[in-house]
Amino acid sequence: MPYFDAASAAPLHPVARQALLAALDEGWADPARLYREGRRARLLLDAAREAAAEAVGCRPDELVFTPSGTRAVHAGISGALAGRRRVGNRLVVSAVEHSSVLHAGETHAAAGGTVTEVPVDRSGAVDAAAFAAALGADTALACLQSANHEVGTEQPVAEVAEACRAAGVPLLVDAAQSLGWGPVPEGWSLLAASAHKWGGPAGVGLLAVRKGVRFAPQGPSDERESGRAPGFENLPAIVAAAASLRAVRAEAAAEGARLRALVDRIRARVPELVPDVEVVGDPVRRLPHLVTFSCLYVDGETLLHELDREGFSVSSGSSCTSSTLTPSHVLRAMGVLSEGNVRVSLPTGTSEEDVDRFLAVLPGVVAEVRERLGAPEAMPSVPAPSGSLVVDSLGKRCPIPVIELAKVIGEVPVGGTVTVLSDDAAARLDIPAWCEMRGQEYVGESPSPGGGVAYVVRRLS
Amino acid sequence: MPYFDAASAAPLHPVARQALLAALDEGWADPARLYREGRRARLLLDAAREAAAEAVGCRPDELVFTPSGTRAVHAGISGALAGRRRVGNRLVVSAVEHSSVLHAGETHAAAGGTVTEVPVDRSGAVDAAAFAAALGADTALACLQSANHEVGTEQPVAEVAEACRAAGVPLLVDAAQSLGWGPVPEGWSLLAASAHKWGGPAGVGLLAVRKGVRFAPQGPSDERESGRAPGFENLPAIVAAAASLRAVRAEAAAEGARLRALVDRIRARVPELVPDVEVVGDPVRRLPHLVTFSCLYVDGETLLHELDREGFSVSSGSSCTSSTLTPSHVLRAMGVLSEGNVRVSLPTGTSEEDVDRFLAVLPGVVAEVRERLGAPEAMPSVPAPSGSLVVDSLGKRCPIPVIELAKVIGEVPVGGTVTVLSDDAAARLDIPAWCEMRGQEYVGESPSPGGGVAYVVRRLS
Repeated sequence: MPYFDAASAAPLHPVARQALLAALDEGWADPARLYREGRRARLLLDAAREAAAEAVGCRPDELVFTPSGTRAVHAGISGALAGRRRVGNRLVVSAVEHSSVLHAGETHAAAGGTVTEVPVDRSGAVDAAAFAAALGADTALACLQSANHEVGTEQPVAEVAEACRAAGVPLLVDAAQSLGWGPVPEGWSLLAASAHKWGGPAGVGLLAVRKGVRFAPQGPSDERESGRAPGFENLPAIVAAAASLRAVRAEAAAEGARLRALVDRIRARVPELVPDVEVVGDPVRRLPHLVTFSCLYVDGETLLHELDREGFSVSSGSSCTSSTLTPSHVLRAMGVLSEGNVRVSLPTGTSEEDVDRFLAVLPGVVAEVRERLGAPEAMPSVPAPSGSLVVDSLGKRCPIPVIELAKVIGEVPVGGTVTVLSDDAAARLDIPAWCEMRGQEYVGESPSPGGGVAYVVRRLS
Repeated sequence: MPYFDAASAAPLHPVARQALLAALDEGWADPARLYREGRRARLLLDAAREAAAEAVGCRPDELVFTPSGTRAVHAGISGALAGRRRVGNRLVVSAVEHSSVLHAGETHAAAGGTVTEVPVDRSGAVDAAAFAAALGADTALACLQSANHEVGTEQPVAEVAEACRAAGVPLLVDAAQSLGWGPVPEGWSLLAASAHKWGGPAGVGLLAVRKGVRFAPQGPSDERESGRAPGFENLPAIVAAAASLRAVRAEAAAEGARLRALVDRIRARVPELVPDVEVVGDPVRRLPHLVTFSCLYVDGETLLHELDREGFSVSSGSSCTSSTLTPSHVLRAMGVLSEGNVRVSLPTGTSEEDVDRFLAVLPGVVAEVRERLGAPEAMPSVPAPSGSLVVDSLGKRCPIPVIELAKVIGEVPVGGTVTVLSDDAAARLDIPAWCEMRGQEYVGESPSPGGGVAYVVRRLS
């Protein structure tokens, strides 16, 4: 049963399992105690810190273990912002950071701070020059992921780090998705990561803070982890995290090349096998194991459900699969289609056969979902005489508004318009994205008198 | 090799180990995902929450899992204080709370809040009426542990809860030390606990917040754990924590009675076997497995080291065993001797033989340490003619100032005084405690012109 959602959580690496079992016996005591069980725990903790620091590329005393990658990001951002409070209160982030970064930004803004989001291009990458331009004199901290968690695109970390260095602004790199594949390019000031993304256990994050970076930990602290991560250390999991990071790194070059080829196959074959698909993210500067595509006229939740029935576990940034009913902020920032979105992230060891079976199953599943939703197979050939049409999709969820748009666009003459009334937040993203894919003109939006938003599309062909 | 420090961390319970191993295979995926691995993880998480809630005595939707007991306390205090910000900014705590509570109080005070500490008696218990009297109209939250972690004394939780109810103040109970032994008396508004104290794994705390309690989680949050504990759930450890809580509870009555008898034996025998010992904490209203005593004229670090050499792992609240060089705030608040302090906390399954061996070894170890430090064996019999003496102990660490006091007290006549000059913080606690134990009068302290503090003792017998 192929699990293709390694970017959410990777199954436990065998080395992690082995190390965890050993550490349950040897590392359950308090490493702050002086008796033998405590000394043994301390030795394990010190060794894990050294191994993790080596993989990160920092000194052991620059690295602390946190209860999760999210907590590492939160602690890193709040501590760095507080450490540079006198310089200013601006936080600069890319628009496609992980939600943990954006949530920390919201907390900062709620406390009176300023957050600047640097936009990304259609591939999901920031422009290093644009990022540099956002670094004003009042910037306390900048954050940039090493690679995007939803579309796999690598960010220009080295260039942005150089710009931050020139501006005197510390850079926090969220390396959650990439650390298992190799060290982050040099130049970062703070680095955060999460063990369960590389095959380590849940319950362990890393926060590295370079010596010399001003850092004032926020909230209550204790004597553990240099005062940066309070609470009893989760030592067995820390030991397993460090051991598995070393193990996946040793396999990273070979396994990365192998998975990269499998992802290339998915990137090439999906648009050939499935009509009306947009593969998103940078095709080259990307994580080796991750690919995302969106299918027009498909409801993401149903698609995931049908793939699950066929035995494939994938995730989606479609609005209909999230609790908030808004599409993924990453797809939104990229300006790409969000409906029928599928993220495939291959765990290490994924077989060629499983990928081929996925490619064999996908077209039928998409076709079935489209048929069930009444998606248009091709543009109707007989245009209606009227120069414009209004489609009332109020109260209908994605992908229905786009399906209804596609069904009627052929009924207006070239040059005529279709106005779609919709109160689904996904429409704001998906109607322009459909126009881009279909070569039609997206005119714009305005509030609709009857509620919702009116989206206007002009037929060009 | 007997490990007698269960109050720091209990060895993993066999049920916890078994549940952890099973959950590593079944519960590594993201419980927020809709595919089968995610659904399986969600089922495990829901079942663990139900089991933990049943043991705590609350509804499952009132309980969240946190990365540690410390984080549960921090989140509970900050959320409850923020939820009642309009009522006032006073936090009322007992003087002997766990450091995680006191650290949260320091953070609150640093942000402009007020913290009131309710004192304890010589047994370590708060007086419920005194606690009630501290609940002013501006009190946002009160905190009281169920039982003390250093001396085992149970607090009058039911009476304090009733007082809090009457005053309309929510009560947070830190049940870290007692939850494995049974439910907390009713009446609490918030409850925090820590799995590794009851034989569960590290990395799991519990925070229960009763419906109707105003609660505003602080810091960045996400969709996990009702927005009260951000970051990917440490599911295998959560499963193990819940399973082991159920298991230890099933054994609690029988094992508690057995350990209670062993602790009674230690409480009775230690003062018979070792001269100049003070057993502290309530002898009856106490945790079943924990006892603390202090030995005059002994350096806690050396004592722990020698006991470790004999194979016994215990902890200490003596200043010389902490990184801050101040004695435990608990012993200080109780006004009892802190030097030569030993805490014995028996893990479940501790054998009678191990306890007897400890009692056999202890007298020789204490005598040896005392001999090495030159402790007085008995009061010198020939008083010096002078009415008063000054002992300069500046620069000397505990227990030297007390040893020097004891050595010369016989040289002044009854009614005469000894003045001890000391710059060791432990002297402020241990010189009055020595007077109490020896039936001498502690006159008071004043700044010493040559640095440090002058402690004056009058010989009464």
